[in-house]
Amino acid sequence: MTKGRVCLAYSGGLDTSTILKWLINEGYTVVCFLANVGQEEDWDEVEKKALALGAEKMVILDLQKEFVEEVVFRAIQCNAIYEDRYLLGTSLARPIIARSQVRVAQENNCDILSHGCTGKGNDQVRFELAWKALAPSVKVIAPWRIPEFIAKFQGRNDLLAYAKENNIPVSSTPKAPWSMDENLVHCSYEAGILEDPDHTPPKELWKMTVDPIDAPDKPYHFTIFFEKGIPVKVVTEDKKEVTDSVELFKLLNKIGHDHGVGRVDIVENRFIGLKSRGCYDTPGLTIARLGHIDVEGLVMDSKVRELRDQFVTISWARQLYNGMYFSPEREFVENSIIFSQQNVNGQVRMMAYKGNAYTLGRSSDSSNLYSEEDASMDSLDTFSPLDTTGFIAINAIRLQKYGEAKIAQGQPLAKQ
Amino acid sequence: MTKGRVCLAYSGGLDTSTILKWLINEGYTVVCFLANVGQEEDWDEVEKKALALGAEKMVILDLQKEFVEEVVFRAIQCNAIYEDRYLLGTSLARPIIARSQVRVAQENNCDILSHGCTGKGNDQVRFELAWKALAPSVKVIAPWRIPEFIAKFQGRNDLLAYAKENNIPVSSTPKAPWSMDENLVHCSYEAGILEDPDHTPPKELWKMTVDPIDAPDKPYHFTIFFEKGIPVKVVTEDKKEVTDSVELFKLLNKIGHDHGVGRVDIVENRFIGLKSRGCYDTPGLTIARLGHIDVEGLVMDSKVRELRDQFVTISWARQLYNGMYFSPEREFVENSIIFSQQNVNGQVRMMAYKGNAYTLGRSSDSSNLYSEEDASMDSLDTFSPLDTTGFIAINAIRLQKYGEAKIAQGQPLAKQ
Amino acid sequence: MTKGRVCLAYSGGLDTSTILKWLINEGYTVVCFLANVGQEEDWDEVEKKALALGAEKMVILDLQKEFVEEVVFRAIQCNAIYEDRYLLGTSLARPIIARSQVRVAQENNCDILSHGCTGKGNDQVRFELAWKALAPSVKVIAPWRIPEFIAKFQGRNDLLAYAKENNIPVSSTPKAPWSMDENLVHCSYEAGILEDPDHTPPKELWKMTVDPIDAPDKPYHFTIFFEKGIPVKVVTEDKKEVTDSVELFKLLNKIGHDHGVGRVDIVENRFIGLKSRGCYDTPGLTIARLGHIDVEGLVMDSKVRELRDQFVTISWARQLYNGMYFSPEREFVENSIIFSQQNVNGQVRMMAYKGNAYTLGRSSDSSNLYSEEDASMDSLDTFSPLDTTGFIAINAIRLQKYGEAKIAQGQPLAKQ
Amino acid sequence: MTKGRVCLAYSGGLDTSTILKWLINEGYTVVCFLANVGQEEDWDEVEKKALALGAEKMVILDLQKEFVEEVVFRAIQCNAIYEDRYLLGTSLARPIIARSQVRVAQENNCDILSHGCTGKGNDQVRFELAWKALAPSVKVIAPWRIPEFIAKFQGRNDLLAYAKENNIPVSSTPKAPWSMDENLVHCSYEAGILEDPDHTPPKELWKMTVDPIDAPDKPYHFTIFFEKGIPVKVVTEDKKEVTDSVELFKLLNKIGHDHGVGRVDIVENRFIGLKSRGCYDTPGLTIARLGHIDVEGLVMDSKVRELRDQFVTISWARQLYNGMYFSPEREFVENSIIFSQQNVNGQVRMMAYKGNAYTLGRSSDSSNLYSEEDASMDSLDTFSPLDTTGFIAINAIRLQKYGEAKIAQGQPLAKQ
Repeated sequence: MTKGRVCLAYSGGLDTSTILKWLINEGYTVVCFLANVGQEEDWDEVEKKALALGAEKMVILDLQKEFVEEVVFRAIQCNAIYEDRYLLGTSLARPIIARSQVRVAQENNCDILSHGCTGKGNDQVRFELAWKALAPSVKVIAPWRIPEFIAKFQGRNDLLAYAKENNIPVSSTPKAPWSMDENLVHCSYEAGILEDPDHTPPKELWKMTVDPIDAPDKPYHFTIFFEKGIPVKVVTEDKKEVTDSVELFKLLNKIGHDHGVGRVDIVENRFIGLKSRGCYDTPGLTIARLGHIDVEGLVMDSKVRELRDQFVTISWARQLYNGMYFSPEREFVENSIIFSQQNVNGQVRMMAYKGNAYTLGRSSDSSNLYSEEDASMDSLDTFSPLDTTGFIAINAIRLQKYGEAKIAQGQPLAKQ
Repeated sequence: MTKGRVCLAYSGGLDTSTILKWLINEGYTVVCFLANVGQEEDWDEVEKKALALGAEKMVILDLQKEFVEEVVFRAIQCNAIYEDRYLLGTSLARPIIARSQVRVAQENNCDILSHGCTGKGNDQVRFELAWKALAPSVKVIAPWRIPEFIAKFQGRNDLLAYAKENNIPVSSTPKAPWSMDENLVHCSYEAGILEDPDHTPPKELWKMTVDPIDAPDKPYHFTIFFEKGIPVKVVTEDKKEVTDSVELFKLLNKIGHDHGVGRVDIVENRFIGLKSRGCYDTPGLTIARLGHIDVEGLVMDSKVRELRDQFVTISWARQLYNGMYFSPEREFVENSIIFSQQNVNGQVRMMAYKGNAYTLGRSSDSSNLYSEEDASMDSLDTFSPLDTTGFIAINAIRLQKYGEAKIAQGQPLAKQ
Repeated sequence: MTKGRVCLAYSGGLDTSTILKWLINEGYTVVCFLANVGQEEDWDEVEKKALALGAEKMVILDLQKEFVEEVVFRAIQCNAIYEDRYLLGTSLARPIIARSQVRVAQENNCDILSHGCTGKGNDQVRFELAWKALAPSVKVIAPWRIPEFIAKFQGRNDLLAYAKENNIPVSSTPKAPWSMDENLVHCSYEAGILEDPDHTPPKELWKMTVDPIDAPDKPYHFTIFFEKGIPVKVVTEDKKEVTDSVELFKLLNKIGHDHGVGRVDIVENRFIGLKSRGCYDTPGLTIARLGHIDVEGLVMDSKVRELRDQFVTISWARQLYNGMYFSPEREFVENSIIFSQQNVNGQVRMMAYKGNAYTLGRSSDSSNLYSEEDASMDSLDTFSPLDTTGFIAINAIRLQKYGEAKIAQGQPLAKQ
Repeated sequence: MTKGRVCLAYSGGLDTSTILKWLINEGYTVVCFLANVGQEEDWDEVEKKALALGAEKMVILDLQKEFVEEVVFRAIQCNAIYEDRYLLGTSLARPIIARSQVRVAQENNCDILSHGCTGKGNDQVRFELAWKALAPSVKVIAPWRIPEFIAKFQGRNDLLAYAKENNIPVSSTPKAPWSMDENLVHCSYEAGILEDPDHTPPKELWKMTVDPIDAPDKPYHFTIFFEKGIPVKVVTEDKKEVTDSVELFKLLNKIGHDHGVGRVDIVENRFIGLKSRGCYDTPGLTIARLGHIDVEGLVMDSKVRELRDQFVTISWARQLYNGMYFSPEREFVENSIIFSQQNVNGQVRMMAYKGNAYTLGRSSDSSNLYSEEDASMDSLDTFSPLDTTGFIAINAIRLQKYGEAKIAQGQPLAKQ
């Protein structure tokens, strides 16, 4: 008699293999799930391993398209960024993975979901909050928060010993002294030697970008076309032209990879109240975000932009980071994002070179907001400079009172 | 009998020389003022020219120190940025220049202030709002908003003709096909050929940075030390060490210059309701801002940072851009900036290379917020992972209700 | 030959009658327009007067329904309020009036619009910004900002003299020592004796509410039903039941009127940079807003509410106050308002008594957010109190570090 | 041998008496603590009871002055309000009580703190977050979250049985069918019959206010004087004049009480993710807050007010509600509150009548922001109406482009 049916997020690594075996040993039936969100993986090997360890089934699904179109494009549309630096790569993929895992669980009659996330990180929160919104009555097994499990596996040696006992194959490649999470958007690196925030990440760490020092000595030119804030076409100097969402994103990744664009090394604030150090390489999204900001400069109304930047962008990024994707507030904010992008159409010419992406020029057929005539310092046909006099005078009313009050208080502004 | 005493912001160029002569011809007595905020200039030549044209006096003041310490350091402390890209170079200098001009006017019994700004730009607004706060009863002559003046000088040819008539010396160097504004922080480029937002700025335009392509093939390493959010020391790989505020900023400028750091090319929204295209190179401030953000990651409380980012930084940047430096709201916001920086002490190791600055590591003696022990995925001494279970459960309450409501409405989140 | 065709906002009062005559005397052809937005007026009399004075046509349109449904209901949906007190009555009506006047102008081939607003107030701004958005090429005649007009009419006596000369009938009722603006939503009182902010408004000033002291000694009970945040039905203790939007609003006005609900007396900040004192009675909207807030408490998600309150409500109110109704930012914000109200269904039992409206109870069939079971302190079926322990522990992490840092700095929080 | 020394928040009621006895029975030594924050209480009786039950000591401290001056005045200074209605009464007192309890614990060598709050409420969070910030290494016993305790005491009958067994005296007054929390600022009512949000609170519930229906038929007049945003003097129509902070607040409470001012009945969102229904009567603070808002209208700069309202007020209220008083973010925000109040000096004439407080007039000697001259529609000495023309024209630039774009898109604003 099984204790219950569990759908486990299974990666094929030592941790989740241990959890898989442990769940089976505890008497559960386990269906394994692995999402393809663009990471490098030997999919057949993972499946073989899961089944060999006793999983009832191994489900592997390609979620790249929904990942890009539902979440990554939304991030681009709102220029999402967390704490000025982090483009949210891991946070973007989690909801898509979590939703798919819930579907797989439901299709396979599993009423328990499980993952191998640690008890101090963001990802456990992101998975479980998503699961509970998606399937409010779901049960969760988070082994790294179960006292007996933690007691049993106090370090890597305990895992290796358990693997030996239970015939869990262990990769012969030595483990990198940090942990990684990879998807179409980025690869993250944390823990291990990176826990010293003053330890520079070694050259071999970065997986999705070449070292800028090793990047080509020649810039590479390309153009991104946006419609409603979404990149719909990329054309490169060597005549590549892509329009498919996933292919387009992969092309931007390739450009960013080859030219070393999008490396970030930060100390960030986890939802859980701790600071942690993370390194990220995010080639394509860094480029797409820059291009999108540039087009918005040309075609977006300034006041809409102000409101969007201050409230919508900041809120959406925080919601994603904190695992609140399936929430009323994310739905609320996302409705604003989409509305704000109605007229964000245009193209931006860019180049990548030695660690950087640059905008070289931009244009749009559909917006009347930028006008060379208006902007020109030489032309007065569409603008009466006398109006500015009144504009300044009215804006000065408050400031003059402020200056007068300071004088009355014996602290004239001009003397400070 | 003079019509009045005017203090004119005089640069020595064709525009302000014309205005100087025109004011004199109109019957005013003119005291010229030029602020040294770090731009390249032949100061003696300007003085000679002003006096030759009939100015009663030419006052040139070195404001670099107050510029750096009162405004630039504040910008660093709040990571100021306008519309995601622009570091506000021109806006930062204006209040310091305006205040000094008011002082010079008062010392020289001028009750009229004048400038040569165009009637469509931000700078007229910044100057005049500052003047009216600083000296509420001041009168302003803005020739480029006076109908007769505009009618008289309809293009550069009219200026040249007037120069000829009035013995105004005209520089033999041909005028660049764009206009520039330079100070210690940046050089801006706009108008002319740049009015086409799809016209890439030519290689020779950038004054304060070398082209990344021409930058050295070797990265350059240095460390910035911060106290209360202010850079107080820079030490470089070749043993330079500076602590003086202006010298420190110039050293960062030099590093940025040599390695091509800090070029920006955008279409921005002017206060005046128009969009305009601007290019900026801002070497030192780009580096200092990045270093400051990095140290804050290590030592600043996450919730204070959230509030500071969303409200203080955005407000301060907008106030500076719009010329509202001498305002109750800037004073209000600045009080928060300073308070937020009390514990922002630490140092950041950086490198500059081919158009980019990178952070390599950071440390702080005075903050307990980052702890390797806490952050470590391997250590559970200071953290009970079981607490996270409760944390997630409580945070999930709302989300479960949301998921249940969606199911009840026939739109289960898992199916969308 | 006419100088041009003007569409004038004409009220029948001395000011706009003078302007009508003056425009005609200046050589314009004038079409008069008056919007019925619920104010008390002798419509026939106004028409007769306009035609007698020489208007080509007098157009009077009943805009009450679009006023209520397009703007007032939106204000209710977002609980709009300006500076904590003012419910925006005048600002709400202006866009509807302005739009209708533009339509009338277009139908009557008038390319000039005119109004009788003073040059120091908000209303000129609201009218003209709306007109310019609605008909970007329109010309405006604002007599109270034309130097010759101002010079000619320096006080009421000049107006009376001109009236006499030009056979403009002058009402025999003495003018109140303040000015008023009335519509379905409120009546505003400002200027005159009210310019002293310490002068209490006299008892006879208030038009739309009885003095609370004179209100009935018995409370009056009624229930408001909301759908998607809009009041769709009111049922009263004496069995009145209304569902038509305008009738419903009038009923709430009647209840508020009779019981003295909704008087406000404030000093507010005009868009134009000045402070001014305004008194307002706003019976029905005060009641509807209170009821709406109450239903939202029951059925709206807390995080959506936070975002809506802080960003949407504040922005919408400011936009309306400043005359930015026809703007991209209002359109942007309004999209959020409507989205936020999808599930705001429910009913609130209220009573009005002696100057106040009270909520007595509320219910909703369609929301699962409030649950007696969940809320009950006695029931633990749906809630594990142990979860709270983890929730508190995680939330305390930052605070403990803060406390420790204060101790290390010699300023323990417990000693302060 | 004692299991440890506990400092228990003890009220003398059945719940905390049970906890006291239970702790002793479990082997702890208990020091009881009760804060006088203005509630009605028989202090001697509580002390006698605690000692009779076996407490080592009963410490009762009068915290009214620090409560009013440190927290309540701050709430007034920022017009604090939660979810549009709740004046935060309970949340305001908690930090003061928590801090005092920590001090008492430290003075009495107790390293464990305990309270009798339920596991579903806000107060447990507020107490414990404060304790952990104040004394980061403190241990907490929260009996209502201990499984054995909950199992033992499943309802009031279990408590009564335990009381009988352990000689805990039980009050003969029947328990009200709701729970209450009282302090100088308010009395709160929740749970029991109030859990039905459509059940109107019975007349006898309200403790700190008379029913408006029973309030005097005559308004009562008084004046509040503010300095730096703090009420420093109240003078009444019957010549009472108070300046002491606690006495002043009690006088406002008395006025509010007698005239039925400050009743609120809402469904609110707890920090813990649940909605709950609360009723509050808050007589004095309702009046003081209204008076303060009114004076700010007269003397506070509009842009400072905008920033304060949108960011500071909302943040402070949320921080207090969520128990984040002893936090870096509250300290950060409070610094802004105090700065914003530097010039908030003035007096407001008010009256209370039948459930409401009204402002009748206000004045200030120290502010130049309101000027009758400026505000007057008749005076043009300090204001040129022509300036408004330019102001409108510049503000219209964006709106005209918006209108033009709509026309180009076939959706002219005037036709919608």
